Amino acid sequence: RLQQLQNASLYLVTSPSEQILAVVDAALQAGLTLVQYREKTADDTLRLTQAQQLCQLCHQYGALFLVNDRVDLALAVDADGVHLGQQDLPIALAREILGPQKIIGRSTTNPEEMAKAIAEGADYLGVGPVYETPTKPNKTAAGFDYLRYAAANSPIPWFAIGGIDLNNLNEVLLNGAQRVAVVRAIMQAEQPGMITRQFLSELGRQQRLLDLGTHLI
Amino acid sequence: RLQQLQNASLYLVTSPSEQILAVVDAALQAGLTLVQYREKTADDTLRLTQAQQLCQLCHQYGALFLVNDRVDLALAVDADGVHLGQQDLPIALAREILGPQKIIGRSTTNPEEMAKAIAEGADYLGVGPVYETPTKPNKTAAGFDYLRYAAANSPIPWFAIGGIDLNNLNEVLLNGAQRVAVVRAIMQAEQPGMITRQFLSELGRQQRLLDLGTHLI
Ligand code: NI
Repeated sequence: RLQQLQNASLYLVTSPSEQILAVVDAALQAGLTLVQYREKTADDTLRLTQAQQLCQLCHQYGALFLVNDRVDLALAVDADGVHLGQQDLPIALAREILGPQKIIGRSTTNPEEMAKAIAEGADYLGVGPVYETPTKPNKTAAGFDYLRYAAANSPIPWFAIGGIDLNNLNEVLLNGAQRVAVVRAIMQAEQPGMITRQFLSELGRQQRLLDLGTHLI
Repeated sequence: RLQQLQNASLYLVTSPSEQILAVVDAALQAGLTLVQYREKTADDTLRLTQAQQLCQLCHQYGALFLVNDRVDLALAVDADGVHLGQQDLPIALAREILGPQKIIGRSTTNPEEMAKAIAEGADYLGVGPVYETPTKPNKTAAGFDYLRYAAANSPIPWFAIGGIDLNNLNEVLLNGAQRVAVVRAIMQAEQPGMITRQFLSELGRQQRLLDLGTHLI
C-alpha cells in the first residue's frame, strides 16, 4: 500500500454529487489510483452505502480508497485507510483502531502541523490550502511558501491541495509539488475522465523532468 | 455489562453544555448508572476530549458509558458501547468493529424497527419519541401505543425516550415503561442531582410495585 501511495501523483477527494460513482469511475478509467471519500453532511446509512460502492469500484481498478475523518467507516468497508483533518481523531488513536497496515494521512497548513503529523506517524500529508476554496471556506490559503517548505523538508509523500485545477497546476508544480489532490476540478468537470488524463499527463511530465534532473546531478 | 444494563432504570443522554461534566457528575452522585454521550455538531477533537472525560467519570462511579453514533469514538475511549439511530451504521457492522463484549443500543419508533433491531442483535432499545421534543424536531411522537407494544413484546430492555420529565413520568410508567431515557429534564435542570434522585425514586417505586404484582400472580 505504501508503495502504491508513493507512486500516486493525483489524489481525488470526492464532494457530494449525484453522479459520484460515475465521476469516480471515469477518473479511475483514466488512470487515477488514489481516491478519498469525503462526505460531511449525509447520514451514516448513505455514507456506508457510498463508501462500500466506491471502495469496491476503486479496488476493481487496483486503486487505493481512503475515507475522510471516519475511522469506523473505513473499518466497516475495509478501506485502505483514512484521511484525518487537524480537528479529527489523533493519528495514534486512529492507528490503534485501524492496525499497522492501513494508510493514515493528515491535513497540514504549516510547518508545525507537518512536524507533528510526521512525529505521530502519518503516512502522507495534505499540504495547503494552496488557493482559497469553497470546500474549506474558513481557511485562508497557506500559499506557496508552505509548498516550498514541504518540498524541501517533508520526508514522506505530500499532496498539494486547495483550489488546484488545470489552469494553476503548473504554478503549483513550479513551487515544488510533485503530487496534487483535487476536488472540484474533477468532481465538477463535464468530462472528468479527460480532465483526469490531463492532470496525470502534466504530473507525469513533471516527474520525468525531476528524474532527469536527478540523473544530471 | 448486560446485567448492569438490565438493572438501570434511568438513562441520561447528554446534550451540548458548558457544564456537561458538572451535570453528569451530579447525576452520577445521585445514583445514575447509565450515560450516553451525544454530540452531533462539535469536531472530533472536542468530542474525543469530552468522551474521555465522561467515560472516566462514569467508570469512577461504576456507571456504564455509551457513545452516540460513533463506533470509532467508542473504541477510542474504550466506552461500554454505542447507541445507534436508524440512520447510523447497521448493528452487525458495529458489532464486528466493537467485538462481542460491548453494548449496542438502537433507537426505534415502531414495531417493525423493534423487530429488526432485535433480529440484528441489539442489547437494548430506545422506544419513542413518547412526546415531541426539540432534540428530534422532525420526528412526530410515537406516543403511548408504541410504549404499550414494547411493554408487551420486547424481550430485551427498552427505555422510553422523548420529552420525558418529572411531570409526565407517571403517565409514561402507566403506559408500560419501566426504564426511561432523558435529555433536557436533567441536562437543563438547575439541580440535576436532585432531579436525578427524584427520577430514580419514582422508577424504583414502580419497580417495587411490579415486583409485588409478580409475586401476587
Ligand atoms: Ni473532520
